[in-house]
Parts: sequence; C-alpha cells; structure tokens
Amino acid sequence: MRIGAIEAGGTKFVLGIGDENGEILDRLSLPTGHPAETLPRVIEYFQDKQVEAIGVGSFGPIDINPESPTYGCVTSTPKPGWENYDMLGTLRHAFPVPFGWDTDVNAAAYGEAKWGAAQGLSSCLYYTVGTGVGVGVYSEGTIIHGLVHPEGGHVLTRRHPEDKFAGVCPYHGDCLEGMAAGPAIEARWGKKGHELPLDHAAWEMEAFYIAQSITSAILLLSPHKIILGGGVMQQQQLFPLIRQAVLQNLNGYVRSSSLLDHMDEYIVPPGLGPQAGLYGALALGLAAWKHEAAK
Amino acid sequence: MRIGAIEAGGTKFVLGIGDENGEILDRLSLPTGHPAETLPRVIEYFQDKQVEAIGVGSFGPIDINPESPTYGCVTSTPKPGWENYDMLGTLRHAFPVPFGWDTDVNAAAYGEAKWGAAQGLSSCLYYTVGTGVGVGVYSEGTIIHGLVHPEGGHVLTRRHPEDKFAGVCPYHGDCLEGMAAGPAIEARWGKKGHELPLDHAAWEMEAFYIAQSITSAILLLSPHKIILGGGVMQQQQLFPLIRQAVLQNLNGYVRSSSLLDHMDEYIVPPGLGPQAGLYGALALGLAAWKHEAAK
Repeated sequence: MRIGAIEAGGTKFVLGIGDENGEILDRLSLPTGHPAETLPRVIEYFQDKQVEAIGVGSFGPIDINPESPTYGCVTSTPKPGWENYDMLGTLRHAFPVPFGWDTDVNAAAYGEAKWGAAQGLSSCLYYTVGTGVGVGVYSEGTIIHGLVHPEGGHVLTRRHPEDKFAGVCPYHGDCLEGMAAGPAIEARWGKKGHELPLDHAAWEMEAFYIAQSITSAILLLSPHKIILGGGVMQQQQLFPLIRQAVLQNLNGYVRSSSLLDHMDEYIVPPGLGPQAGLYGALALGLAAWKHEAAK
Repeated sequence: MRIGAIEAGGTKFVLGIGDENGEILDRLSLPTGHPAETLPRVIEYFQDKQVEAIGVGSFGPIDINPESPTYGCVTSTPKPGWENYDMLGTLRHAFPVPFGWDTDVNAAAYGEAKWGAAQGLSSCLYYTVGTGVGVGVYSEGTIIHGLVHPEGGHVLTRRHPEDKFAGVCPYHGDCLEGMAAGPAIEARWGKKGHELPLDHAAWEMEAFYIAQSITSAILLLSPHKIILGGGVMQQQQLFPLIRQAVLQNLNGYVRSSSLLDHMDEYIVPPGLGPQAGLYGALALGLAAWKHEAAK
C-alpha cells in the first residue's frame, strides 16, 4: 500500500510516501511560499506516485469540521495568500482518493500514539515549542477536535517572579506562546536560544512556563504521556528542568506511579524525532483509507 | 427498565431509580457518614428496587482504571474511613448487576451531554464550584479518563492584581480550588459567599479565577459547551462576569461564532440543575447495562 503524507508547515512542506506499517519510502521538503506556487509543487510530487489515500497535517488555525462550508481551509493567518485558502479542496480536486485532514500538532500526537513515544497508549499530548507553541491532543484513543480544534499554545500563564518581559503574542501578550516560543526567548534575552549557554537563566525560566502549562494539562486531561518537540526543545537541558518543575507544581497531588516514579519516561522527546508530523500525516491518510474501505 | 443511580458526594449521598428515558422515578438523600454506616443504608435502599444496572458518580480521587488492582476504591481523602475504601466492590457484592463507575463531575458532564445543557453535543466540560472545585470532561462523545482522571479544579492560576490572599489548597496554595472554592471566599473576605452583597468586589475576583481556567480549557480542549454548577455558582451574578472575562482573555483569537456571538449560550448553568450528578449516575448505569447487553 502507498499512502501520501503532507506535513504542511508555515516554513516548509514535507511530503512523503509511506505504507501501512509506518515505513516512510520517499520524502521531499519544500519551502512554504504563496499557495499558488507551493500547491502545484505538492500536486506535481504526488502525480505519479499512485497513492491510495493522503493525510495532511497543517499549520493553522484550519477548519476541520466536516459540516462546515469552509472545511479544509486555512482560516486566519498572517501568511500572504493563505488566509481562507482551500488547501484540502485544491488537493482533493487533483487526487480523487480519501483524505485525512487535521492540524499539524494533532497529526504529530496521532503519529506518536501510532508509531512513536506513546505507542500502545490511549492518550498523549504533543507540544511543539518553536516559532510558535502548539499542542496536539489525543485522548481515549481519538484525536480531540471539539468546537474548532485545540490551541493550547495560548493558555494563560502565571509569571516567573523574576520575569518582567511583556510577552510577544499579538493576541494575549503573556500567554504560553507569548512567553516561551523562540521569538519570546530572543526578544527577552537579545539572543537566539541556540546562542545562549546551557547554564543561562533563560532555560530555568523557559522550563517554568512550559512546566506550568503541562501541569495544568495533566490536571485537566490526565494524559498517559507528554511529548515535547519543536526547535526550542532541541535544547535537551530543558527536559530535566521541566520534569522537576512539573513534579514541584503537582506536589504529590496526583497519585500515579507514572508521575511520581517514572517522570523521565512521562515527559519525553518525540519517538519519531523531527518526523513526528510527517508520520502523523501518514497515520491520518491510513485512517482515511480504512474509514473509506469500511463503508 | 429500572436503573439505579448513586451520586456519592463528600457531604451527602443521593440515591435514585430512573429509566432509559432519563426519568427519575424515586429519590433519597442521605448524609455521608463513615462507610460502615453509609453503605449499608445505600444497599438497603436498592434491596427491593429490582434494578437492572447501577451507575455511581463518586467524590474522589477514585480509581477508575478497570485494569488496576484497586479499581473501584476511593484512593486518597481526609474523610475518616474512606481512604482506600472499596466502594464499588461493596456494592457489587450486594447486587450482581452491571455497574457504571466514574467521578462525580465526569458523571455530571455525561448526564448534561445526555439529557441536559449539552444534549446532542459531542463535548462539554462540567465545573462544580463549591466546597472544592472539580471538572468533568466529556470530549468526542466519550468521558475522558486518561492515566487517572481529570482533576481540573487544581489547575494553576495567575493572581488577580488586587488579591493578596495566599489560597487554601493544602497541595498547591493558590491553584483554582485554593483561590475560588467556597472556603477560599470565606477565608479571603471573612464571610460566606451568600452573606456578601451582589455588588461586592469578591464576585469580580471570583469570576477572574474561574474565567481564567475556562479560557485555558477552551484553548486546550475546544469544548462545545461549558457548564458551571455547585454551590458558589448559585450566585447567578457570576455568569455575566465570567462570560465577559473569558471573551476578554481570548481576545478574538478563537474564531467560533459559539464564542464570539453566543457566549450567553456557551457558558451556562446545568440544564439538569442540582441533579446533574444523579442524572449522570443514571446515564452511567444505563451505559453499563447497554455495554453488558451488547456482549
């Protein structure tokens, strides 16, 4: 079986062909330009690949409600040409196969649950901390959509006692993304994250914000695993700082051995590494194929 | 059909008999004493009622993982006699019928989704704000359990700028429950909530904390409806204050008409009033009966 996978990111599109066992057989990366330029290149890639279904994990916000007239569109984005662009419709027009369609972070959470760090578990959260912060939610064996889709990168935060930084989120100022995304690190410290030394105070502060949102997510959703990906999380020194802060925040309240005794295996990097999103898109395509085949 | 329903609260047990249409045919309320005293009264009530299944929504934390050796027990509680008490086992021993078993707030969320304010919707959150704060989570047509079960009353909060109160939560100090439960209102202002005038500053501050946690829950989970019950929410003046604060917090970021144009119908009191928990227990019992019948 050949399933197409599209990780549609704000910076780059990653295209791939995979099979039902989660093997990626081919892979191509493109910079994200104007849709009139990018989508034809995507279509060209899949033209001769004979895929039986395609899964798309997209940057957003996007419309993932099949009942909505704008299903399949990117809704609001500052990226030129993409606001209200019907990405799924354009792809469907080119390929008459079943399509899976979800947010990039939901796709990554799903991919990790199928083949990665949360394999065999009925729930996980996937955080990406990079240019922005996004959270994919997989719970009770299903991807969570709800009214729109999760936008957990924008949850409110309490301030670090030594932090006077105003935050960079244009909507909320000092929400999680406003305080902890890559641009916030750069604006606060005057240097990019990878230019700061490993023992810089920035990392304890960064861990403080990420751990806070994880603590609240554990309390609200009780996930089996928390997976942290994205550019900022390449700073491996963050993991022990975050785990320690989460344990301090919870203060023994949630009595689960997974938290109390195995925190090192509870908050982890993606099992699929930087390809979690592409594998997730493959998993979405496979699910769409199965759904169609079951009809 | 006759289904038993048990709302096992920390202050009182409410017992009932209902049918498959969500009609409550009989109802009895008991004060919660030591389990050796309360459970025999519960068993006595159902003895001659010929129920085909029983649903229980219990105060907690409780063990709701069927794979766990302590499934059906209350786990940690300061209430004398209840810590590690096998409530479900005791009931099962008395009645060889299918049992539903979940937290009181998950039961209330489920009841509201089946017959109340969230009827026909695939997701809702049920908050109870009273002696403590609890959050039940229903999402994608199913109750969320995860690793343990949601404990959303303890999410972290940012402080109201004029609030110097330390918070009353023994685990977290100034978490949501620590700042907004009934005992926090009384400790902060020196009076019980119902003794404070409707225009007292306490209500704006109370709305600030509740709205903050709702905002983060909307961002993380995107529920179709938020239902607010419990003793503190009898203060009806809180609803418009909370709705307004949530809209201010979100600041137009989540583009859904349900939020932007219909907030009055989005954050609402329980459609089943103070009996949401009992109806939820009935719904759990009915689901357990159906699950058994489908085998």
